[in-house]
Amino acid sequence: MFMTRSEYDRGVNTFSPEGRLFQVEYAIEAIKLGSTAIGVKTKEGVILGVEKRLTSSLMESSSVEKLIEIDTHIGCAISGLTADARTIVDHARVQTQNHRFTYDEPQGIESTTQAICDLALRFGEGADGEERIMSRPFGVALLIAGIDEHGPQLYHTEPSGTYFRYDAKAIGSGSEGAQSELVKEYYKDITLRDAEVLVLKVLRQVMEEKLDSKNVHLASVTSEKGFHLYTEEEMNDAVKREQEKSD
Amino acid sequence: MFMTRSEYDRGVNTFSPEGRLFQVEYAIEAIKLGSTAIGVKTKEGVILGVEKRLTSSLMESSSVEKLIEIDTHIGCAISGLTADARTIVDHARVQTQNHRFTYDEPQGIESTTQAICDLALRFGEGADGEERIMSRPFGVALLIAGIDEHGPQLYHTEPSGTYFRYDAKAIGSGSEGAQSELVKEYYKDITLRDAEVLVLKVLRQVMEEKLDSKNVHLASVTSEKGFHLYTEEEMNDAVKREQEKSD
Amino acid sequence: MFMTRSEYDRGVNTFSPEGRLFQVEYAIEAIKLGSTAIGVKTKEGVILGVEKRLTSSLMESSSVEKLIEIDTHIGCAISGLTADARTIVDHARVQTQNHRFTYDEPQGIESTTQAICDLALRFGEGADGEERIMSRPFGVALLIAGIDEHGPQLYHTEPSGTYFRYDAKAIGSGSEGAQSELVKEYYKDITLRDAEVLVLKVLRQVMEEKLDSKNVHLASVTSEKGFHLYTEEEMNDAVKREQEKSD
Amino acid sequence: MFMTRSEYDRGVNTFSPEGRLFQVEYAIEAIKLGSTAIGVKTKEGVILGVEKRLTSSLMESSSVEKLIEIDTHIGCAISGLTADARTIVDHARVQTQNHRFTYDEPQGIESTTQAICDLALRFGEGADGEERIMSRPFGVALLIAGIDEHGPQLYHTEPSGTYFRYDAKAIGSGSEGAQSELVKEYYKDITLRDAEVLVLKVLRQVMEEKLDSKNVHLASVTSEKGFHLYTEEEMNDAVKREQEKSD
Amino acid sequence: MFMTRSEYDRGVNTFSPEGRLFQVEYAIEAIKLGSTAIGVKTKEGVILGVEKRLTSSLMESSSVEKLIEIDTHIGCAISGLTADARTIVDHARVQTQNHRFTYDEPQGIESTTQAICDLALRFGEGADGEERIMSRPFGVALLIAGIDEHGPQLYHTEPSGTYFRYDAKAIGSGSEGAQSELVKEYYKDITLRDAEVLVLKVLRQVMEEKLDSKNVHLASVTSEKGFHLYTEEEMNDAVKREQEKSD
Amino acid sequence: MFMTRSEYDRGVNTFSPEGRLFQVEYAIEAIKLGSTAIGVKTKEGVILGVEKRLTSSLMESSSVEKLIEIDTHIGCAISGLTADARTIVDHARVQTQNHRFTYDEPQGIESTTQAICDLALRFGEGADGEERIMSRPFGVALLIAGIDEHGPQLYHTEPSGTYFRYDAKAIGSGSEGAQSELVKEYYKDITLRDAEVLVLKVLRQVMEEKLDSKNVHLASVTSEKGFHLYTEEEMNDAVKREQEKSD
Amino acid sequence: MFMTRSEYDRGVNTFSPEGRLFQVEYAIEAIKLGSTAIGVKTKEGVILGVEKRLTSSLMESSSVEKLIEIDTHIGCAISGLTADARTIVDHARVQTQNHRFTYDEPQGIESTTQAICDLALRFGEGADGEERIMSRPFGVALLIAGIDEHGPQLYHTEPSGTYFRYDAKAIGSGSEGAQSELVKEYYKDITLRDAEVLVLKVLRQVMEEKLDSKNVHLASVTSEKGFHLYTEEEMNDAVKREQEKSD
Repeated sequence: MFMTRSEYDRGVNTFSPEGRLFQVEYAIEAIKLGSTAIGVKTKEGVILGVEKRLTSSLMESSSVEKLIEIDTHIGCAISGLTADARTIVDHARVQTQNHRFTYDEPQGIESTTQAICDLALRFGEGADGEERIMSRPFGVALLIAGIDEHGPQLYHTEPSGTYFRYDAKAIGSGSEGAQSELVKEYYKDITLRDAEVLVLKVLRQVMEEKLDSKNVHLASVTSEKGFHLYTEEEMNDAVKREQEKSD
Repeated sequence: MFMTRSEYDRGVNTFSPEGRLFQVEYAIEAIKLGSTAIGVKTKEGVILGVEKRLTSSLMESSSVEKLIEIDTHIGCAISGLTADARTIVDHARVQTQNHRFTYDEPQGIESTTQAICDLALRFGEGADGEERIMSRPFGVALLIAGIDEHGPQLYHTEPSGTYFRYDAKAIGSGSEGAQSELVKEYYKDITLRDAEVLVLKVLRQVMEEKLDSKNVHLASVTSEKGFHLYTEEEMNDAVKREQEKSD
Repeated sequence: MFMTRSEYDRGVNTFSPEGRLFQVEYAIEAIKLGSTAIGVKTKEGVILGVEKRLTSSLMESSSVEKLIEIDTHIGCAISGLTADARTIVDHARVQTQNHRFTYDEPQGIESTTQAICDLALRFGEGADGEERIMSRPFGVALLIAGIDEHGPQLYHTEPSGTYFRYDAKAIGSGSEGAQSELVKEYYKDITLRDAEVLVLKVLRQVMEEKLDSKNVHLASVTSEKGFHLYTEEEMNDAVKREQEKSD
Repeated sequence: MFMTRSEYDRGVNTFSPEGRLFQVEYAIEAIKLGSTAIGVKTKEGVILGVEKRLTSSLMESSSVEKLIEIDTHIGCAISGLTADARTIVDHARVQTQNHRFTYDEPQGIESTTQAICDLALRFGEGADGEERIMSRPFGVALLIAGIDEHGPQLYHTEPSGTYFRYDAKAIGSGSEGAQSELVKEYYKDITLRDAEVLVLKVLRQVMEEKLDSKNVHLASVTSEKGFHLYTEEEMNDAVKREQEKSD
Repeated sequence: MFMTRSEYDRGVNTFSPEGRLFQVEYAIEAIKLGSTAIGVKTKEGVILGVEKRLTSSLMESSSVEKLIEIDTHIGCAISGLTADARTIVDHARVQTQNHRFTYDEPQGIESTTQAICDLALRFGEGADGEERIMSRPFGVALLIAGIDEHGPQLYHTEPSGTYFRYDAKAIGSGSEGAQSELVKEYYKDITLRDAEVLVLKVLRQVMEEKLDSKNVHLASVTSEKGFHLYTEEEMNDAVKREQEKSD
Repeated sequence: MFMTRSEYDRGVNTFSPEGRLFQVEYAIEAIKLGSTAIGVKTKEGVILGVEKRLTSSLMESSSVEKLIEIDTHIGCAISGLTADARTIVDHARVQTQNHRFTYDEPQGIESTTQAICDLALRFGEGADGEERIMSRPFGVALLIAGIDEHGPQLYHTEPSGTYFRYDAKAIGSGSEGAQSELVKEYYKDITLRDAEVLVLKVLRQVMEEKLDSKNVHLASVTSEKGFHLYTEEEMNDAVKREQEKSD
Repeated sequence: MFMTRSEYDRGVNTFSPEGRLFQVEYAIEAIKLGSTAIGVKTKEGVILGVEKRLTSSLMESSSVEKLIEIDTHIGCAISGLTADARTIVDHARVQTQNHRFTYDEPQGIESTTQAICDLALRFGEGADGEERIMSRPFGVALLIAGIDEHGPQLYHTEPSGTYFRYDAKAIGSGSEGAQSELVKEYYKDITLRDAEVLVLKVLRQVMEEKLDSKNVHLASVTSEKGFHLYTEEEMNDAVKREQEKSD
């Protein structure tokens, strides 16, 4: 009986003969089915942009939450299983609030990111007295944007519990094409306003539906406003500017 | 040995190589076997309507409960496994009562919806000190209707723990046809009275049996009455109005 | 390797790809192997009737208990695994006694029914601090008859934890034929005395052995007597009346 | 791959598609491999008789215990796994002693029987704080004989946790032939002395070895003596009487 | 797929369709691989004899312990897994010491035997607060020899938890031939001295290696000495006497 | 059915027939997929060097942490799963801090190494009250460099929990070629400055990408500075020296 | 489907149909892959000798610990999994220290050996409140050498939890050839100095690499020095003497 790779994903957290963790790899597949999200770091702050998939015209766009505030100075864009993301974000919110309460200062962006990744790593059979753990990897990737004493930062976390810092990063079903585009277009001194247009331009290229101010959303993290979800007017303005440029 | 998808649903909460959670998808199949339920949001309130399947003429119609009050200002229509729904609704009732007790105000509709979805997400092997969790996903979808300081709202929850807000939404075995019909017929300024007729009209189109005032039921959530189950007279009146219109 | 449905019943509480719970369906099969039981609601009260299978002439008929009192105002007829039924009834008795102790009034019939169904739903791997749970579904169906401030009521519960109210209902191996007969013969204003005859008549039609006053048993729930098991004389009288009618 | 019934007995307490519990059925098979035991109720008391299988002439007959006292007024004959029986009887002894201690009266025969059956039902994975439970069904059947205010009684319990009252009953490898014989020979007014002879006569017919006063044993439960194991002289006398009759 | 018996031994304590417990049967096989041990009861006391397998001439004979004292008046010969025997004997020693402490008298031989068998029965998944239990049957058989107010006694216990009393009994790889020989040679009035010779004679017949005073060992339980391991001189003397007789 | 080795890695901690632990071997495979890391011991201190894999030009090099401080006098280079390494290092940090707190002195390098290996060994199903354990082996190898009263030391740990001390050691995907090179080039009296050049030279030979001061990193442990991560200038200087030498 | 022996090693502690425990047998295989170790008992004390496998010339010989002190009067040579041995030795050290603390005297050698074997026996699923247990057998064999009031002693323990006392014993990959050699060469009155030479001579014959004072190590247990690891000079001296003799 020839054993296929399928044999190795029964135990949720077991190595294959090649040294791979299939459940983690499968969770990454779940993210490739998710909507595209993009983050771009500028000197003024970070821009996050997401695609919203509206499966019915009667679905209310504002209830599709792909951009979520974690603390006043930190937020994230998500791609993958929405319900998993909610669990992670709830966990991160408690973390940042505990930090504020204990040290009387906002938590650093890397600390928050690491706390999220520690949670991601701990899936499996085991129980933990302090907090509830999933019995499988979280099927969600995050772009964490924040600002602290080290300035604006953009982190990418994935189901394996690994995280890296990026200047610009795309995740989700259109991530491959989007990342190539970002590599071509991104430059260190990009302004926040130009980053808005860049994010929308890249999203337009990878989305199946025609981009409009309903099926995409932007958020920024700056030292003035902290995490800020774009209003309808701001969205209309940004989409208009992007369209003018692309003409 | 070629492995079919069947290999992946043994662990109740495990990813397949394509990044899918089969037990959750199978639970969604259980809902497609369920009776049809429809919700329509108006500016005055929300109308919920359900099909009742009476397997014997000796079964008492009033014991088939598909429309259930959660709190005075919030209720739901269910489709799928009746016993699972009862567990979820009991959980939601405790949540809303706790909220009233702690904050001395009715719980917001989205908070209640999220509490239900958090419960849905937590199925699996693990135990939780606070409340009992199912060892499989809940095989039930809900249309949650409520009214709070943000006005009337209609939410749809499914076994994956995802929820979205809708203007009008159909679930259950006839949901596909019903949703198309709602997209065609729904308009923002529909009155509560017209919504009653719309719900009945759509139900009539997707039900196998001939619709009468026994095998369908309506409920409304309005700021005047809160959650209100239609009486026999109200049902007769609504069915009559719908028949007159459709002639 | 083609997977048959057999693959899905290993986990006692797992969905199949079609959204079905096979262990619950198999438990329902166990009931189809059980002896037939019938309930008929009248305005004066409810009549329950059961078939008794005596596997040896040396077996004492009175030790075959298929009609069981839960509280003075409520009882049930069982079909399926006798030992499972005993566990459920013990549970229900504690429930009704707790209710009396706490509220100083008999528990409502629907409340008792729901408590039984909640227990049925909770089978599986999990443990529960309060009461012992089976590791499989209960292989038993009940006809619960009772009387409270809403008058006489007849409920049917099954292994899935679903329950409905009926005017007249048959369960067990002969239930299909018996239910058709009940639909034909039942009328709203049937008297308690005529219901006795109806129950016996339907049992006679579905039983393999010739009906006599030893291999069937009747019970009634009325406001005068509460739950009442028929004595030998009462049985003889009822069987005689039924025979006279059917001649 | 065609699944045979073998697939269903892995989970010790799981239904097969036909609604059967195979582990319980297999335990019943274990009893069919056991030595034969017979019980006969008379108006004066109950006679229990067992076959003793001596695998070596050097084995001491008195160490083969198939007739066991539970309380002074109640005892049993066992067939099946000896070690399982010991566990059940220990449990029953504690039950009856607790009853005496709590209520200052001997426990009723049916209560003792039900306590044994409740224990039998609770096998499986689960743990129970109060008493140790087997991880499989008990592979033993009992004939419980006792006397209380309802007079002499004979109960038969089996691995499923079901029990019934009998006038006369045979269990074990020769039970089928023995029960037919009992149906033929038993009569309501049989005396205790004649019941001794009947039990021995039936045992002689189903035993492979030639019956003598070493390889069978009798016990009686009467209001005068309570549970009483026959002495060597009593055995010799009974065997002699049986032989005289059968000549 | 045809299922062989192998399918049934996965669950350590599960019945096969024929009502058999394979793990227990396999444990009995483990004993058939063990060294031979023999017990013979006389009116003066019990003689136990064992074969010692020395796998290297550099192994010290005295470290091969197959005859073990439990209490001053009781000891055993073992066959099967040595490490399992050590666990059982430790358990028995605690039992007998507890008895002495509680009742200020030596424990009866049957009580000690039953305590050992109760432990044997309790293998499996379950946990027990009082003492550690093996996750498989104990792979060891014991010949328990002791003396109490009922005189000298010899018990045989096996992995199933069953025990019987014998006049003379052989266990281990040579047990079949040895038991036949014992049946032929044993007589009720055998003296202790002649029993020594009988045990050695039977061992000689079934051992592969030539019997000498190093590769066999004897012990006796008498009212004068209690459990007594033969010294080198006693062994030499007994072996010499046996050789003289057999010439 | 022929069983391949695949059969043995299901239980995470089970021997194969050849006496191998496959999950541990597979974890070692995971390390062979990791980036290369090298350690070289000198009389002045230890040099650690790592390859950094930058998957996108927009990834920030400084967020790829392969060289990590454990305590002021001890640090490590990692190869394998980044998230696993973080867990191990966190554990080691707590260990060394506890040691300082309890004994008021830095922990010895071997003690720290052993504590890490004890953690590695304890993977599996079991739970441990004191600290969280992985349900699989850690997929990471460490080069632990430190300095204590025994002078500079370099340890290599692997998933099996085994550790050895080395003069110079390479791990990760290029380890085989790198170790051969080290054997050729290493000499006992190498200076710290020459060790820097040796580490870079060996890394250059095994890396797929062209080595520059961004995609490699160095750290040293000396008695003057303790654990020290090279700054950008130090990296530029070292890379330049290595290039000059290799020309 | 023909079942091979592979079917039986899934449950770590389950009998095969032939009464064998495969996981224990596989653990013994793991030892056959280990380095060779030899023990020789003399009247003055015990000599232990081990082979050291140095996989790289840069590995420090002194970090390969195959000879370990347990208490001042007792030590061991190990063969098999190094990390498992560390766990066992830690356990034994606590045991001997507890004994000293409780009884104010060194623990006997057999008591220490038995404590190690009891630990070995207790692998499996179960948990134990007092100490951590492996989920598989320990993959290590020990030669335990010690001296107490019974003089010098040499014990051999294996994964099954069995132990025997030897005059001279070899374990590990070369054990078969080494043991034959020991049988030939060993004599009761061998001096400690000659035992050193014997151990080295036998190791030379079974080692693949050429024996020198780096890749073997000796230890002695004597009443003067207790457990003593040979220094470099002592090793050089012993190796030289052995070479002179063999010339």
